[in-house]
Parts: sequence; structure tokens; C-alpha cells
Amino acid sequence: MKILVINGVNLGLTGSREKEIYGTQSLGEINGTIEAFARERGHQADFFQSDIEGEICTAIAKAAPHYDGIVINAGAYSHYSIAIRDAIAASCIPAVEVHMSNLLSREPFRRTSVLSEVCRGTVFGFGMKGYLLALESFFL
Amino acid sequence: MKILVINGVNLGLTGSREKEIYGTQSLGEINGTIEAFARERGHQADFFQSDIEGEICTAIAKAAPHYDGIVINAGAYSHYSIAIRDAIAASCIPAVEVHMSNLLSREPFRRTSVLSEVCRGTVFGFGMKGYLLALESFFL
Amino acid sequence: MKILVINGVNLGLTGSREKEIYGTQSLGEINGTIEAFARERGHQADFFQSDIEGEICTAIAKAAPHYDGIVINAGAYSHYSIAIRDAIAASCIPAVEVHMSNLLSREPFRRTSVLSEVCRGTVFGFGMKGYLLALESFFL
Amino acid sequence: MKILVINGVNLGLTGSREKEIYGTQSLGEINGTIEAFARERGHQADFFQSDIEGEICTAIAKAAPHYDGIVINAGAYSHYSIAIRDAIAASCIPAVEVHMSNLLSREPFRRTSVLSEVCRGTVFGFGMKGYLLALESFFL
Amino acid sequence: MKILVINGVNLGLTGSREKEIYGTQSLGEINGTIEAFARERGHQADFFQSDIEGEICTAIAKAAPHYDGIVINAGAYSHYSIAIRDAIAASCIPAVEVHMSNLLSREPFRRTSVLSEVCRGTVFGFGMKGYLLALESFFL
Amino acid sequence: MKILVINGVNLGLTGSREKEIYGTQSLGEINGTIEAFARERGHQADFFQSDIEGEICTAIAKAAPHYDGIVINAGAYSHYSIAIRDAIAASCIPAVEVHMSNLLSREPFRRTSVLSEVCRGTVFGFGMKGYLLALESFFL
Amino acid sequence: MKILVINGVNLGLTGSREKEIYGTQSLGEINGTIEAFARERGHQADFFQSDIEGEICTAIAKAAPHYDGIVINAGAYSHYSIAIRDAIAASCIPAVEVHMSNLLSREPFRRTSVLSEVCRGTVFGFGMKGYLLALESFFL
Amino acid sequence: MKILVINGVNLGLTGSREKEIYGTQSLGEINGTIEAFARERGHQADFFQSDIEGEICTAIAKAAPHYDGIVINAGAYSHYSIAIRDAIAASCIPAVEVHMSNLLSREPFRRTSVLSEVCRGTVFGFGMKGYLLALESFFL
Amino acid sequence: MKILVINGVNLGLTGSREKEIYGTQSLGEINGTIEAFARERGHQADFFQSDIEGEICTAIAKAAPHYDGIVINAGAYSHYSIAIRDAIAASCIPAVEVHMSNLLSREPFRRTSVLSEVCRGTVFGFGMKGYLLALESFFL
Amino acid sequence: MKILVINGVNLGLTGSREKEIYGTQSLGEINGTIEAFARERGHQADFFQSDIEGEICTAIAKAAPHYDGIVINAGAYSHYSIAIRDAIAASCIPAVEVHMSNLLSREPFRRTSVLSEVCRGTVFGFGMKGYLLALESFFL
Amino acid sequence: MKILVINGVNLGLTGSREKEIYGTQSLGEINGTIEAFARERGHQADFFQSDIEGEICTAIAKAAPHYDGIVINAGAYSHYSIAIRDAIAASCIPAVEVHMSNLLSREPFRRTSVLSEVCRGTVFGFGMKGYLLALESFFL
Amino acid sequence: MKILVINGVNLGLTGSREKEIYGTQSLGEINGTIEAFARERGHQADFFQSDIEGEICTAIAKAAPHYDGIVINAGAYSHYSIAIRDAIAASCIPAVEVHMSNLLSREPFRRTSVLSEVCRGTVFGFGMKGYLLALESFFL
Repeated sequence: MKILVINGVNLGLTGSREKEIYGTQSLGEINGTIEAFARERGHQADFFQSDIEGEICTAIAKAAPHYDGIVINAGAYSHYSIAIRDAIAASCIPAVEVHMSNLLSREPFRRTSVLSEVCRGTVFGFGMKGYLLALESFFL
Repeated sequence: MKILVINGVNLGLTGSREKEIYGTQSLGEINGTIEAFARERGHQADFFQSDIEGEICTAIAKAAPHYDGIVINAGAYSHYSIAIRDAIAASCIPAVEVHMSNLLSREPFRRTSVLSEVCRGTVFGFGMKGYLLALESFFL
Repeated sequence: MKILVINGVNLGLTGSREKEIYGTQSLGEINGTIEAFARERGHQADFFQSDIEGEICTAIAKAAPHYDGIVINAGAYSHYSIAIRDAIAASCIPAVEVHMSNLLSREPFRRTSVLSEVCRGTVFGFGMKGYLLALESFFL
Repeated sequence: MKILVINGVNLGLTGSREKEIYGTQSLGEINGTIEAFARERGHQADFFQSDIEGEICTAIAKAAPHYDGIVINAGAYSHYSIAIRDAIAASCIPAVEVHMSNLLSREPFRRTSVLSEVCRGTVFGFGMKGYLLALESFFL
Repeated sequence: MKILVINGVNLGLTGSREKEIYGTQSLGEINGTIEAFARERGHQADFFQSDIEGEICTAIAKAAPHYDGIVINAGAYSHYSIAIRDAIAASCIPAVEVHMSNLLSREPFRRTSVLSEVCRGTVFGFGMKGYLLALESFFL
Repeated sequence: MKILVINGVNLGLTGSREKEIYGTQSLGEINGTIEAFARERGHQADFFQSDIEGEICTAIAKAAPHYDGIVINAGAYSHYSIAIRDAIAASCIPAVEVHMSNLLSREPFRRTSVLSEVCRGTVFGFGMKGYLLALESFFL
Repeated sequence: MKILVINGVNLGLTGSREKEIYGTQSLGEINGTIEAFARERGHQADFFQSDIEGEICTAIAKAAPHYDGIVINAGAYSHYSIAIRDAIAASCIPAVEVHMSNLLSREPFRRTSVLSEVCRGTVFGFGMKGYLLALESFFL
Repeated sequence: MKILVINGVNLGLTGSREKEIYGTQSLGEINGTIEAFARERGHQADFFQSDIEGEICTAIAKAAPHYDGIVINAGAYSHYSIAIRDAIAASCIPAVEVHMSNLLSREPFRRTSVLSEVCRGTVFGFGMKGYLLALESFFL
Repeated sequence: MKILVINGVNLGLTGSREKEIYGTQSLGEINGTIEAFARERGHQADFFQSDIEGEICTAIAKAAPHYDGIVINAGAYSHYSIAIRDAIAASCIPAVEVHMSNLLSREPFRRTSVLSEVCRGTVFGFGMKGYLLALESFFL
Repeated sequence: MKILVINGVNLGLTGSREKEIYGTQSLGEINGTIEAFARERGHQADFFQSDIEGEICTAIAKAAPHYDGIVINAGAYSHYSIAIRDAIAASCIPAVEVHMSNLLSREPFRRTSVLSEVCRGTVFGFGMKGYLLALESFFL
Repeated sequence: MKILVINGVNLGLTGSREKEIYGTQSLGEINGTIEAFARERGHQADFFQSDIEGEICTAIAKAAPHYDGIVINAGAYSHYSIAIRDAIAASCIPAVEVHMSNLLSREPFRRTSVLSEVCRGTVFGFGMKGYLLALESFFL
Repeated sequence: MKILVINGVNLGLTGSREKEIYGTQSLGEINGTIEAFARERGHQADFFQSDIEGEICTAIAKAAPHYDGIVINAGAYSHYSIAIRDAIAASCIPAVEVHMSNLLSREPFRRTSVLSEVCRGTVFGFGMKGYLLALESFFL
């Protein structure tokens, strides 16, 4: 299986911002762990990151014939980007939503993800392990 | 008359996504039909498409001296982009809003367009024919 | 094609009330223009006006076998008449909703039409030209 | 590790009700799969099911010294049982919330879980595989 | 002190749009005044403008080691960009929010800034003088 | 006992509109069945139907000395006609509200009847049988 | 001065319904008192009553050249008839709203009049004396 | 036909609490009347009562192969028990909801039943006669 | 009859503030007119004005044995002073509420008076004439 | 006097959970203190605790002839159990509500008690002393 | 211990207004009873009453070094005076809120006290005895 | 220029209450700093403080001919005093609103100022420096 892991806005900062929430690993290190996790199980994980909402839409639109699934952590865009939501809904491959923190236990405006409704499933609150569980959901 | 037709996020996918809503014509084919429709009536239609909210704002800002009107289908951005709304309001040429589906009969979060308030008029629900009616509203 | 154009409450006053919004043509003059517009294109437009909600429902119920489509501007009833909404939904011919002003840019209580959800499409904001565009949506 | 898997109201019906949402396996079969999954990884999973809100609270209160973690699918109680929420918050062992369907894409009243806020993380939408991912979140 | 002044979407139009609200100076002229104001007081002001939400996030993320403070007028993004909000919160230098108009006395949807909560302070309603007061808040 | 059965807006269409909700019997046939049902039990049922809200109010006002009870299905007016509500409240004979569909399980705007509060009881969801049950509530 | 006194739905029942709220005088008797009150002061009061919303709109539309003012108690229509509201707004003669009971101290749904906003003034809560005060507001 | 009549919380008190609302008959007496009513018509009525939400869910789950229909008055649980709602929805036999008082004319928090949406029909407001009408709805 | 006319906060400014709303007469001049109006009809009007909420409460509390009625325009306090509301409700003499502008047609936060519910009646929108009409409501 | 002290869900944990809120005394110790407090004043206190909502209803229903009053701390059920509310309302002996923490200063969802409305009085925020004050309210 | 008992707006009327709610004792008599109650237990109670919100704030601000606690019944100000709330929060001595009626069972606008959140505890609904229980909460 | 600096309720406590929010300077010391700041720039600042809402209104009303501008920090009254709002709106000199804390990042009920809408501008969050910036806004 080939899975595309998409990280959205401000996630390039992971490891240097609010470490008590997002941990101390950089996004590069996290991606390395994910990549190894997939490879050990005989699968492949590729990566895309952008701070720009429209570029994430384009990336989702282009993923379709090349990947079997998408794992997406859109960062703050999760709370209001109907554009990304529509891109996922229009895509013909399944998506799983990940958040490192437990979105549902934070500030009120963070408790809603407009993406959840069009994703197959969601994995919130397990730090960087959440990416691994999301991949596992495709492999099990 | 010179009219600029602006298509927003995910509309580059038209013809390949949710065909029961958006039809089977590609955006290129739709633009061809629009272009011919304008030309037959002695007018000119130009086209701009972007998935990126800020680029759409820039395009609107630059349209002013060169065009007599704007026909805009901003896609999902229509529901929350006050940025595009402000760009239209700041522009000194009139804009008409188009949606292929009847926005007002879909999911609740799609029933509001923050752009409508600053457009001269709106044409919702006639599929790709909506673009032609929007142009016609300038020509009649 | 035979199209029935229905005008609702207070629209008999058109031309004499709030002219900056509704223009200076009387309803009779508007109907004359619509009638000519349809005839030139080889179609037929008939007209019905009533201030009484229930009479509009009855007119819609009776339109079915005799007309190919309905163009309706229900005036203020558009904001709350579930009765007219149900009459349109129960009818087996398609309806297009017209408003001369751009409903979506006026007072909050005017920004909702309970009819939109059951109409094929909507044309708001082009003054009396809106009727012509609504007809055109059937002819194109 | 010893994990207590708690299933709430109506989940005893799994396999015989709304199969398109909850699948065709009985709760006994699902528990068997979970039990094996844990054992293969060198851990232990025990099970508790009750239709009665207060009994679930009591079970959580008693779990504390005997288990390393709780995996809970409280069924419909998830949407309103502040009692179960308080029991989880008062417990000194971590809990992970599971739902077989993607709660966040169903009817509005099902999109809220009052338990999420006090759980370490949530796994929604992967059918019975969700229980395995929830366990995995303890083992990884 | 080194202060980065960030202007967001549509602010490149300043001086040519809605002059009764935003005045007649172009953004270049305003920046010139700000630059001089800072220099006279022995400080330095640099400038960044973009219509693209994600680029503003990136600019904030990169400001940290190079500047002592940020003065930000995000334009329409102020009302909904949790992405920019998160970028400010994640940054370790203080930010001050400026709006030329008094946001709190305009249309309801403009009365909320999602950025305010993470800024040290706000200065609304003094036209281009607001930028000077915001700088002064760092210098006093 | 003499009972007046009142049917409101669009109910003259029964049997020809949305048959999966309202069945295939015409209003005349339904009234025939009701009339026979009452007669067999030694009572009398009379009938009134109008699409016009004000005429229904007048009919209720005039029913008082001549009938022992009212059975009313006001159709769409049930959702907003405080006028009919006031007419029932002002009348000195008891009224029972009937809806063929189960109002409480349909679209949100249909889940409220402003009439219920002033009726003795309500019978929703049993198709045309609901009229018979409403009559029975007077006879038992 | 010539004043048209308009009474709306269910007000034909005055004197026989809820006497503790509306008193024991019939509408005819009330009108007699009003008529005499106006005559004594050298003015003229005419009367119109209808249970039908659309007929009230028509009456308002036709009042314009013949009367100097309108006194209107629209009954229950006051709470939701945007149609009557629009008729008043479109009329070029001033209207004063009357309610016999103090609308603002009754059930929540009665505390709003959609007509108030377009009337010159309102007189609520003085029983039939309210009509006299409303007339007096024209004569003083 | 075999019908299961389920009474929920506090209904064991019927006849001794708030008699002006619930009458003076004990639940045993009411059940006797219901039982006789069914028997006379050649059918069978059985009875279940519990104050415990979860036990009601279990009773509904077990009713399926043994009964042709359920008549349920869940008492206060009707206002919030999504658990009972889910049990009814998961059951493959039809349910009819009964309330002795007219739920829709009482305190606001009592005007909603979360059960109505999954019941075939509802009968509110006829005192103990409501149970008979609910049974009749199966027999007619 | 002896009537106490109470004016609340900012009403001492009448005649010098927002003259298009409140007219050009000073409060002293208005009181003179009111006083004469009452005297001509054989009654007596006394006056009290304060900017302080608590002093208005005290004045109402002390009015009881000395006056037959209160005419009150509490100014901005009308929108939120439950204290004044309670003082009126506790008083055993009737009060009539007056506003010079038509409260019900102004900004949303001005459309509610917490005093209305405890007043016998209200007179809004007739400028200073409203005080005369309010007095007249006692004398007629 | 004989008073029944009822403790609801999770209160069996008192002394071992969230000690900064609920203190370190076990429920048994608290009951001992209460029992002594009553006895010293010549009265009798009995005790009931259950985690199950329906059992609490039953206990209240049975208290009536045997006790002079109820002191109830229903724990989390206080926020949503209309069932317990109805049981209290149906009971003919007075109830006083107690919470150890000051409910009104905690999370928003805890600031409402559906029981308060049917209790004679409430005592919130004094820790275990609240039970003594509640008893005292019967004895004073 | 020295306790300051503060009574707010309209409470000077106690004993002469709405006696079914507030009893027949005057505030002086109530204060006498409170004073005796405190003295018998070896403590001291002093008293302050004002109808003016700002004076109550000042009294709270000055209480700090002289008293061990405050018992406050702010009357209607309890529902909206954030000013008094802030005065209590800024004070370094604990406050207990009292209301004679059970605030939580009265009109909706009375069910909220903005003071509760900053008080140690609340005692509602026991008439004048509530003051004694509030004092007792300091003495126990 | 002559500027009047108005401080509202509880601000007399500044320096002794919640020092982490409001700093340790007394209001007298703050006023001294402001006075010097104005004098150095060739202007004059005068001061007014009151805990009483109505007195603040009176002070604003009297400021008009004597001052060129008002700087106001109304404390808690900012959140609800429409009376002060009206006094500012009625005044013919411009006002600037100051808060020492950043109102927009505190508890929800503090995030709204009813005064902002009628002030020329607002300066929030810079501690006592905010007063200086507000003055500067007049001098620049």
C-alpha cells in the first residue's frame, strides 16, 4: 500500500513550538519514524507539507491515482477549511484524520473539525503515535 | 464588453468530481462554451482559476481597469472568505456570483455565501448554464 | 414551452413603491416585456398575481399539466410561507425563484427564502431583468 | 499490560442491529478478536458490558488498582452521561474512547461526546478495528 | 529594537479602496511614515505584506530570532484565520494587533478578531496613526 | 356527537402529491371513510377545507355552537400560523390535531406545530388512520 | 383628518373571546366609540376588518390617497406577517400600531411585532382605549 | 396481535402523583383496562415497567421476536434518553409513543421527545385513553 | 389624579443631544407642556429626573401613597435595569412606559425593555407627545 | 424530624477522588458526622446512595410517608436527570439540594441543576458542611 | 468573627412588597434577628444597605481589613452587575451569596447570578433563614 | 489640548487588587504619570473617577464645552452600561476607550464592550501605558 501523509499549516514548526502539546521531535524526525513504521510492515509512506490552504487542496486532488489512502493533519485549517473538506470529499481515495493533541478536549473553537465528516475515521490525542495508528488502520 | 470569469478552489476538478452535482464537462470545456457564448453576442470573456484564496483576491484587485464586470464562482471559499468579499467590495467594477448547484438547497453550512452581500446579483442552481445567465445579465 | 410567471404579495404595487429598489415600471409593463421576450424566442409566458398566500398555493397546484415550468417571485411570503414551499415541492413541474433585489444583501430577515430549497435554481438582484434570465434558464 | 474494555448501552446487540453501521460480528466474536490481539502482543484484555449507566460508573471506579488502562465505547451514553464522564475523570488510570462509526460524520446530536474531554485520546470510525487501534495506543 | 510590521490581505490596495475608511495614503507611503517614526526614536521597522494566509504564517514563524516584536494588521484574515492565530501563539516574540478602522464599531462579522486573544494588546480605529501607536507601545 | 374535520393548505392535493408520505387516497375518499367511521359509531362528521389561512380562522370561529369538537390538520400552516392558533384558543370547543406523517421525525422546520399547545391532544404519523383515531378520542 | 382603522385576524371575535384580555365590547361597539371620539374632535375614522393576510395588504395599498393615517391592530399577523410589514413600508401615509393587551408582557412569541419597525409609533396595553390614544397621536 | 406496553420512570406512581395531570387510576388499573380493551378486539397486551433506563433498553431489545409492536411511554426519559431511542431504532418491530399529558403544551424542556423521531407515530394528551388509541393504531 | 413623571439617565440632556431623534425642546420645556396638559384636564403632574439607577428605584418606592400613577421613561436603563423593573413590580400603583423614539425600530439592543413586562401599557415613538398620551391613558 | 440524605452517582468515591474539590473524608465518615449533628439536635438522619438514576427515583418515591424531608446531592445526575426532578416534584415532602463544590463557579455544563427548580432551596459550595446547613434549614 | 451583611437594591422594601415571596418582616426586623443569632454564638454582624450599585462596590472595597467575611444579597443587581462581581473578586475576604427566594426556580432572567462565580458558596430559597445559614457557614 | 481622563467602577482600587493584571501603581500614581506625559507634550490632562454609573454619565455630559477629548476606562461598566454608551454618543467631543488588560483575551463576558461602538478608537492590553497611547492618539 502507498499512503500519502499530509501535514498542514504551522506543522513545519513541530518540535520547536508548544512542546508540552506537540512534543520535541521535529517534523522531519516524525516523518522518519512514520516512514520506517510503514516500511517494516511492507508498505510505503510519502509526505507533503504546506502552510497554504489551496496547495493542500491541489495535493489532495493529485493524490488519487497514485495512492491507496491519505493520512491528513491539516492543523488549524481543520477548524474552518471547507475547501480542504471538499477536496477530500471529491477525491476517490479514503482519508483518515489525525491530530496530535486531543482536539475534543481543548478550547471550544478547536473542538470542531470540518474535515471529520468526510474522513473514514479519526485518531486524536496520541501525539506522534497517532500517525502510526492512522497508518495501521489501513494495514490491519 | 470584457468580462473576467473567476473560478475558485477545487473547480479545476470539474468534470471529474461528484458528477451528479457538477456535470461531466471539464472546466476547459465549460470555459470554451462560455467564451463562444460571449463572442457570438459581440463580447469577450477571459478566465482565471486558482485554488489559493489570496491569489483570487489579487486577481480581483487587478481586474479593475481592464474589465467591465466579474463573474465569480469561488467554490468553497464562498462560505467563509471575507478576504475575497473585501476584494470584491473594494473593486470598482460589478460582480455577479454563480454556483452550479443551488447552494440554497444543500447542507446548512453551504447555504450562506459571504460574497453575495457585495455582488450585484446571484445565479444559483443551473449547472454550467449559470455562467451563461450571469454573462447575459451584463449583456441584456 | 409554456411558462407560468407568478407574482406574490405587494408586487401589484411595483412601479409605485420604493422605486430605488424595484424600479419605475408597473407590473403590467414588466409582464409586457416578459411576454415579448418569450414570444420572440418561440415560447409562451402567462401571468398570475395575488396578495393571498392560499391562492398562490392553489395556482401552483393547478399549473401542473398546463405548463412546462414556473417562474415565481412570492414577495414577502418567500421568507416564511412553508405553504407555498410545499405547493412547489408537491408540483411535478420545475420552478425557478426570482427576486428583483438581491435578497442576500438586504436586512437579515430577508436573507432567507424558504422556497429556494425546493426550486431548481434562483436568480436574485437583476431588477426586472431577473424574470428574463429565469425564463432564459428554461430556453437555453 | 492489563486493559479493561468497557462496552455500554445497546452494544450487546452488535451483530444483529444496523449491520451496515456496526458490522455482522457479535460482541462475543469481537471480544474474542480483541482478546487474541492483546495476547499475541503479550498483554491482557478483560471485558465488561452493561446497559445501565450507573453500573458502568461503578465498573470504572473499581478498575483503578487492577488495570493499566481503559478502552471505552459507552454507546449512546457518550452523548450525555456526565456521570460516566465524572467516573473517568475521577479514575487514576488513562482511558481511550472508541466508536465503531465515525461519530463526527453522523446526526448532529451524535457529533458530541461528553467523554472525549476526559479521555487521553479518541479513535472513531474504523468499525471493530477501532478497538484494536485503541489497544495499540497503549502498547506502542 | 527591531519590529516587523506585517500587513495582510487586500492591504496592498490601501489608498485606492474605500478611502473614507482607510484614507488616501498608499501602503508604500504609510510604510515610509512608520519607518521614519521608528528611526527618529532610534529603532528599526521592517515590512512584509501578502494576500496569502499561509505565507503570513510562514513569515511569523521565521520572525522569531530576528525581531523584538511584531505589529500585525491581518486584514480580513483577522476574523477567521486560526492558522495565523496559531502562528502568533507559537512564536516566542510579542505581537500587537492594529486595525485602521475601529473594528468594534463595524458590521457584526467584523467585530471579532481571532488574533486578539493571542496578542499582547490591540490598537483599533486611529487610521494609519494606529501603526505608530502600536510601535510606541514597544518603545515607551 | 358532531365533529368538524378541518383540512388546511395543500391538503386538497392529497392522493396526487408525495404519495410515499400521504398515501394514494384522494381527500374525498379519505373524508368518505371518516364519515362512515363516525356514522357506524352513532356520530356525525362534517368537513371543511381551505388553502387560505384566514378562512380557516373564520371556520373555527363559527364552529362553536354547532359542533362538539374539531379535528384539524392545518398542513403547512401548523408550523407558523399563530392566527389559527389564536382562533382555536378563542373557541370554546376542544380541538385535536392530526398529521398524516409523523411531524416529529421530519425536517427540523416541520417538527414544531404552533397549534399543539392549544389542542387537547395530538395524533401524528398514522396516515389517514390518524383522523379515525382523533375521532375515536372523542367517542371513547 | 381621515384615519383608516384596520383590524386583522380573529378581531371580529372581540367581545366574545378571552374577555379578561380583550374586554366585553364587540368590535362593532368599539368602532362606534372610536367613530364618535374622532367626530367630536372634528375628524373622521373609517374601518376595515379581515381575517385574510393578503386582503389586509391590499387595503393598506389602496388607503394611500384617501387617508391621512392608518391605525392598525393586525392581531396574530403582527408576529410574523412580513407581507403586511412590506405593505405598510411601501405606503406613503404614516401608520400607528395598536394592541389591546400589552404585547410586551405576554408569551415570548407574542413579544415581537414585525410591524413595529415600520410604524411611526406603538400603543400597547390600554384595552380599547388604545385605539383612542392612537387616533389622538394624529390629532394632538 | 401481541403488543408490549412499556412504561418508564416514575410511572409506577401513576394515580398517586399530580392527579390533575395523570388522573387517579393506578398503573395496575390502567393496565387492566388496556388488557381488556385488547382482549375484546381479539389481541393480547403484555406489560413492562422500570425506573431504570438500561433495563428499558434491554426489554426493547428482547421484544423483537415475541411481539408485533411496542407501545411506549418512557416518562421523563423521553426527553433525553438517546439510549432508549437507539434501542427502538435497532429493534425490527414498530413502536408507537404515548404520553398521557400533551407534551407539546407543557414546559419547554418537556416539548421535545428524542424518541418520536424513531417511532411510527405519536399519541399525546388523551390521558390513559392514549394507550387505547395507540393500540387501536395497530388494530385498525 | 396625581401622576409622577420619572425621567432616567441622559434625559436631562434632551434638547441638546441627537435632535433628529429627541427634538429641540429641553426637558424643562417638555415638563412645562406636560404640566399644563394635566392641569387643563383637572389633574396634577409632578416630575423627577436622575441619572442614577438606584435613585430611580428609591423614587418609585416612595411614590406609592402619594400618587395615582407613574409615567416612566428610564432612558438606557430600560434595556437592562432589572432593579427598576423590580421597583415597579413591587409598587402598588400602575406605571406606563414612554419612549420618545420608537424603541422597536432602532438598534437590536434597544428593542427590548425589561420594564415593559411590569407596566400596564407602553407608548413608543411619538416624541414628547408620548408623555401626553401616557397621561391621557390615565385620564380617559 | 426524620430526614433522608440521598447521595447520587460517583459520590461513593468521595474521599478518594479529586480531593482538592471534595475533601479527604470518605462518604461513611461524612455520614457519621451528619448523623451525629442531627442526633445532637434531637433529630434523625438516614442515608441512601446509588450510582443508578432509576434507583434514586424509586428511593424518593418511597420516602414520602416515612420522612419529613429529603437532602439530596445527586452528583452528575443533577445536570440532566429530569427523571429525578420528576420524582422530587411528585413527592409530597420538601427537598433541599446540596453540592459540596459551588456548582455555579465551575465548568459551564455544571452550572445548571435541573433539580433546583423543584427543591425548596439550595446550598452550594461549603464542602461537607453543606449537608449540615441543609439539615439546619429544616431544624431552624 | 465579624461579618458584614450587605443588602442591595429594593431590599429596603422587604416586608412591604410581594409578601408571598419575601415574607412580612421588615429589613430592620430581619437584621435584628441576624444580629441576635450572631451574638448568641459569640460573633458580630454589621449591616449595610444601598439601592445604588456603585455604593455597594465601595462598601465591599472598604470591608477588607475590618471584617472576616461578607454575606451579600444584592437583589436585582445579582443578575447583571459585573461591577459588584469585580468588587467581590478584588476583595481579599470570602463572600457568601444569599437570596430569600430560590433564584433557580423563578423567571429565566433571574436564574443567573453573576456573583455566584466569585462567592465561596450560595444559599438560596430559605427566606430570611438563609441569612442565618450563611452566617452559620462561617461559624461551623 | 485639554483631555478628560475618566476612570470607572473599582478602578480606585488599582494597585491593591489583582496586581498581576493591573500592576502595583495606585490610581493616584498612574494619574501623576499621565499628567506629566501630557504636560511634557504641551497639553493638559484632568481626571475624574466614580464607582457610580450615573455620575459617570453626568461627567461626560458636562465635559463637552470644556475638553477636546475624553479618555475613558469604565471598568466593569464597559460590558453592559448602555447608559454610559448613550452619554458618549450624545457628547460632541471624541472619546477613546482604554483597558489595562487585553479585554479581548479574557473571560467571554469581558470580551464585549458596549462602549467601543461609539468611541473613535480603542487601546487594550498595555497596562497603564494604554492611557499614554490613548492621549498620544489625540496629540499625534
